[in-house]
Amino acid sequence: MSLLVVGSLALDTIETPFGRAEMVAGGSAVYVSVAASYFAAPIRLVGVIGSDFPKQEIEFLESRGVDLTGLQTIQGGKTFHWSGRYHYDLNERDTLSTDLNVFEKFNPEIPQSYRKSRYVILGNIDPILQRRVIESMGQKPELVICDTMNFWIQGKHDELLQTLKLVDIIILNDSEARLLSSEPNLIKAAKIIMKLGPRIVIIKKGEHGALLFTGDTIFSAPAFPLEFIYDPTGAGDSFAGGFVGHLARTEDLSDENFKRAVVYGSVMASFCVTKFGIKGLKDLSDIEIMGRYRDFIELSRVSD
Amino acid sequence: MSLLVVGSLALDTIETPFGRAEMVAGGSAVYVSVAASYFAAPIRLVGVIGSDFPKQEIEFLESRGVDLTGLQTIQGGKTFHWSGRYHYDLNERDTLSTDLNVFEKFNPEIPQSYRKSRYVILGNIDPILQRRVIESMGQKPELVICDTMNFWIQGKHDELLQTLKLVDIIILNDSEARLLSSEPNLIKAAKIIMKLGPRIVIIKKGEHGALLFTGDTIFSAPAFPLEFIYDPTGAGDSFAGGFVGHLARTEDLSDENFKRAVVYGSVMASFCVTKFGIKGLKDLSDIEIMGRYRDFIELSRVSD
Repeated sequence: MSLLVVGSLALDTIETPFGRAEMVAGGSAVYVSVAASYFAAPIRLVGVIGSDFPKQEIEFLESRGVDLTGLQTIQGGKTFHWSGRYHYDLNERDTLSTDLNVFEKFNPEIPQSYRKSRYVILGNIDPILQRRVIESMGQKPELVICDTMNFWIQGKHDELLQTLKLVDIIILNDSEARLLSSEPNLIKAAKIIMKLGPRIVIIKKGEHGALLFTGDTIFSAPAFPLEFIYDPTGAGDSFAGGFVGHLARTEDLSDENFKRAVVYGSVMASFCVTKFGIKGLKDLSDIEIMGRYRDFIELSRVSD
Repeated sequence: MSLLVVGSLALDTIETPFGRAEMVAGGSAVYVSVAASYFAAPIRLVGVIGSDFPKQEIEFLESRGVDLTGLQTIQGGKTFHWSGRYHYDLNERDTLSTDLNVFEKFNPEIPQSYRKSRYVILGNIDPILQRRVIESMGQKPELVICDTMNFWIQGKHDELLQTLKLVDIIILNDSEARLLSSEPNLIKAAKIIMKLGPRIVIIKKGEHGALLFTGDTIFSAPAFPLEFIYDPTGAGDSFAGGFVGHLARTEDLSDENFKRAVVYGSVMASFCVTKFGIKGLKDLSDIEIMGRYRDFIELSRVSD
């Protein structure tokens, strides 16, 4: 099942209490594509980089079967750069700098060969661009998933509402859900967000797992209890990649399969955070992924 | 299976964004006993009240089959009074006043008829008193469960460590676990706490559920997704009551049954918070409790 991924490609400088990584490949489109690549093909990426984006990371994406026809390279330009520092409590981080660089004028162009992609996942970018992507598809995708963030919820609220009308599934974290709905209770918040367009809402709660709302049903997935978390960067996008990857692989859009997809998303997030940047998503085997999936199921299983 | 409950009886004045309750019956021994009373009998209570504790609440406890032989009433004395205000985000609260009153000189005396109780649950009281209770039992109980709080972890650290050596199961919340272990990661924290004595650690995470650590196994229980939470007071003690109540009812101390007990604890906490004070624990039917248990299991169940 063909999957279109639109989002940022970045060079990240990350500090955590356990180390530092400088100018390493990141960005939502990278994490989503790599995580999804363990499940489905082809993955079609749309994004923009400068000429400083490391060649070996391009080759890595290609080795994962990611189609880069839609990747724009601005010669002489610089790739989007984000720098952040995590606290000892890894749930807290300070953004030290954000240099949009070539990402500032990013205008996603969907190549002709991508336009019949049946699944579309829109990383956290300007909702106007998200809508433009949906509208430029050659045929209505079967599933449109989007992410967003406080910056757009507050700064481009009306544009975001327009975009949400075209979206099937929204993935956001708890504080974003509260902000978007103006409602502190997450169950009420999800119901309010469903009225804005998405028929499915997924609320990520970091180390506390994720909630899936489908119609009247709620599914609660734990986070994997890890003793060592080195770098939370990209965990949310890895979740989204595992989630959509499982759906694309199985081509099953039943409520029951959305639950499994949430667990696969959690699996990929749990691998992501064990190393810096995208390293935790490299060189995974199907056996490791299946094993972690089974451990997840076991984690909240109660026998009769 | 006989169950001994030692803890506070209080009159609470509670403010939440949804209302206010003045001088209503509360305290750890009350919440634990009432929640456990839906599962097991006899429940033997040890605590102290003044002459202002409402007669109808005494009668309510008796109607629930709670044995009050060990309840001391100080004539002319005033019952422990706690007053607090919850924020709009119900996870935050301010304590407005704490008047220990007759609780200040509480010295738990275990009546002869209680001394062969096989299960003992020690609410959040001075660890010296907790130890005295354990040591005054006529025979070693099969299971000793204790709760504690930041106040004792910081103020009576050495005494608490002495008590923990005699304890099988400790139930505490995430911030208390971090404080007791000096470790922010909850998985590592639980392992450290296990080395202090308890072979089982339960970490409550409020609206994010609870983690059960038994040997090398971790079980993650979600919290019930409630749209309306009126008063979180007593949720933790209701959890403890449902937990120990299920164990006492089934007389099954297997790891698998501890998981079920955690779910029953979560069930009782979910009923508790829907009304002010102990009202949410009154008039529950077995059918309601079983139904909520099944809903809990369904909440995190994934089919193959």
